[in-house]
Amino acid sequence: MATIVLCKTAQIAVGRCAGAHFKSLACLSGRLSSTHSVPCTLLPGARWFSRGTGVRLMSYGTTGKSAASRLGRRALAFGGAAVVSAAVAGLVANASHFQRAEMATSVVPVPEVREQKEDIQERCRGFMSPPVTDVNVLQRRKEEMRTRMEMLIMETQAEFCRALEEVDGGKFKVDRWERSEGGGGISCVMQDGKVFEKAGVNVSVVSGNLTEEAARQMRSRGKVLKGKDGKLPFVAMGVSSVIHPKNPHIPTVHFNYRYFEVEEEDGSKQWWFGGGTDLTPVYINKEDALHFHKTLKNACDKHHSQHYTNFKKWCDRYFYIRHRGETRGIGGIFFDDLDSPSQEEVFSFVKSCARTVVPCYLPIVYKHLNDSFTQAEKDWQQVRRGRYVEFNLVYDRGVKFGLATPGSRIESILMSLPLTARWEYMHEPAKGTREAEMLEVLRNPKDWV
Amino acid sequence: MATIVLCKTAQIAVGRCAGAHFKSLACLSGRLSSTHSVPCTLLPGARWFSRGTGVRLMSYGTTGKSAASRLGRRALAFGGAAVVSAAVAGLVANASHFQRAEMATSVVPVPEVREQKEDIQERCRGFMSPPVTDVNVLQRRKEEMRTRMEMLIMETQAEFCRALEEVDGGKFKVDRWERSEGGGGISCVMQDGKVFEKAGVNVSVVSGNLTEEAARQMRSRGKVLKGKDGKLPFVAMGVSSVIHPKNPHIPTVHFNYRYFEVEEEDGSKQWWFGGGTDLTPVYINKEDALHFHKTLKNACDKHHSQHYTNFKKWCDRYFYIRHRGETRGIGGIFFDDLDSPSQEEVFSFVKSCARTVVPCYLPIVYKHLNDSFTQAEKDWQQVRRGRYVEFNLVYDRGVKFGLATPGSRIESILMSLPLTARWEYMHEPAKGTREAEMLEVLRNPKDWV
Repeated sequence: MATIVLCKTAQIAVGRCAGAHFKSLACLSGRLSSTHSVPCTLLPGARWFSRGTGVRLMSYGTTGKSAASRLGRRALAFGGAAVVSAAVAGLVANASHFQRAEMATSVVPVPEVREQKEDIQERCRGFMSPPVTDVNVLQRRKEEMRTRMEMLIMETQAEFCRALEEVDGGKFKVDRWERSEGGGGISCVMQDGKVFEKAGVNVSVVSGNLTEEAARQMRSRGKVLKGKDGKLPFVAMGVSSVIHPKNPHIPTVHFNYRYFEVEEEDGSKQWWFGGGTDLTPVYINKEDALHFHKTLKNACDKHHSQHYTNFKKWCDRYFYIRHRGETRGIGGIFFDDLDSPSQEEVFSFVKSCARTVVPCYLPIVYKHLNDSFTQAEKDWQQVRRGRYVEFNLVYDRGVKFGLATPGSRIESILMSLPLTARWEYMHEPAKGTREAEMLEVLRNPKDWV
Repeated sequence: MATIVLCKTAQIAVGRCAGAHFKSLACLSGRLSSTHSVPCTLLPGARWFSRGTGVRLMSYGTTGKSAASRLGRRALAFGGAAVVSAAVAGLVANASHFQRAEMATSVVPVPEVREQKEDIQERCRGFMSPPVTDVNVLQRRKEEMRTRMEMLIMETQAEFCRALEEVDGGKFKVDRWERSEGGGGISCVMQDGKVFEKAGVNVSVVSGNLTEEAARQMRSRGKVLKGKDGKLPFVAMGVSSVIHPKNPHIPTVHFNYRYFEVEEEDGSKQWWFGGGTDLTPVYINKEDALHFHKTLKNACDKHHSQHYTNFKKWCDRYFYIRHRGETRGIGGIFFDDLDSPSQEEVFSFVKSCARTVVPCYLPIVYKHLNDSFTQAEKDWQQVRRGRYVEFNLVYDRGVKFGLATPGSRIESILMSLPLTARWEYMHEPAKGTREAEMLEVLRNPKDWV
């Protein structure tokens, strides 16, 4: 199995070459030149290396805001912010040779150029599909949170899908669907790829009227909302994803970021955000776990010193398969019903989290891409997949809500299920095995950071 | 694919040879001699050919009651009534040559010798394990319904397991388990056998105290029961089974027969029975469907002319995967909360049903034992297995109740899940295919009889 390669890292040159960084962690050992302007041919550029994470290596990030070129901004609209970051990198690429190439764990502020200045239409161009809401409508209410959030989830979808397509070599199937009661979604699924058994990245933006009871259920704290004639106009949107790789040494990842607005009788709007990112490995790899949690912690720490601690615990509590006495995976963060201190600040936090998905996960994928595995390891993966199905069908609030809601798009809800799973009667790994080590962690969640 | 073989059938000779009957339907065509006393070497005898089903072929059944020998009765305690039937067959084996060998659809009254005269200890000898309740306790309260039902479910388990072991060649793993709150169970599981991917046959006999709310939930009609200080002593027992074969042309079968007793404040006992048997094929085979439903209908018709009609509809309603708009399979019968006209009569009905399991299913297994299949057919089976998991985890009342009940034996509850399953995004069979034909039936349940 691969371990993290420590190597002399290059000053990555300008443009799309920046994407090669994470790959180099996994598969190169000092092969890149440490001079500047090295032709980036060893590994073709990846757009998924987003937004200046990994500052220690890249030596850029914070200065990029003002320097972002028109070119960079346009490129950004295609599949994420990586190209901007890379372009920015070119301007400041004159520092710290021979740095330690560990997996990127730093998250730095992101240029807000897009949101502030750019044309909606232009930003939409890199999406997997036109947004759910009509572009003219989005343009008209550009300042509203529902627009800003819809743009964020579309961008997150595009960025993650492009990153996965690049590592897999396959293409996502993109389905646009409409909901007769209002809104719709865009489901991107790649199935039976080279690297991924099943990868789903789903955006949905739905609206309509809720009953007071339904509105109460949607808030985890069960706050009572008063509607006009018992009805509450609402909009709910989110991006959610589950990625099941083939190789049992590459973990499954899940994330979901969502936003709700409900209009009360007096016309006032209740709003809240929810979300989280969590990892489900088949085998424990402490470095992966540390990288994943540390990356999330860094994103959280920018916003509140208690966020990571609180949301890490919430995650372990939420993704708990009660009838097995096991968590689903090694957690990450999970939060719901977040509506303070201000809409702007919560949105900013959610944005940081959404932008951490790629740097949380992709380095781990590249690192284990070529790990060999045995049939026994594959079988254990399949047993763990079975547990994943159990959690999703028995406990997951989103799935339960979706299955019970008439007019839901079932295929989008259940795309989180793995392509294949296995249930063995009385399966219990032998003591001292790596399978037993995994179970031990699932039975007693650890603090990784 | 095999179809039902029409052949000149033999007068099966005495003893264990009778078991060969169902097999001959599937794999022999007139090869057995039509004289009596043919040495039964072509196919070794099977004990699972039980209780005079198939009268048209076997030309016996109704006369057996008085003729049952001591030998027969003892043999009966081992894995079912087949040997008695066979012994009886020998006494009357002098009729109707060259009959049409269709799958047995007639169910005839069963000799009640066992229940009436035989020693409990002796009857227990053929069980997969000693019963859950101590044999001395059972002996002491031999006349009580809880004893009679426990003996029936143990017998049903043994008979079915032996029949499956014979066709598979493998052996069931038998686990006895205890429940700290009272009672326990016997789980028999065969996994990754030659014929069966996963076969589970479970008996449980549990007792303790229910809250009034829990008691209300246990009755599908939600009748209010009054307990002493809110507590209701109860006993619940049942046999349940799910068999997932490897070959996609052999359907999955499920059955469950159960009995409840709850003691109210004034010491009076509420009791009721529930149960059912249903089939989940991967491909439609009309003959199989007709055989399965006809066998159940015959068992029902002996007890009430409306039972089959009512319980067939109930089955289609119960095994409905609402979010898919599909039934789980092609149904069978399902009933719950049955407490009239009398305990004796309901027990007699349940007994008829339990004894119909083997003749419902085994002929279908033997018929398709050697059917060849393609990878595409196997994949479709795996997709249907996925739906099976969805029903069991999302809707099945028994599973939901079990998972939510502290102290449940999870492995016994979830042994109903297949060894392997598959979820393909947006899977929809092409028009005109056999897969589409199957879906059409699941979307619009048919009347088979």
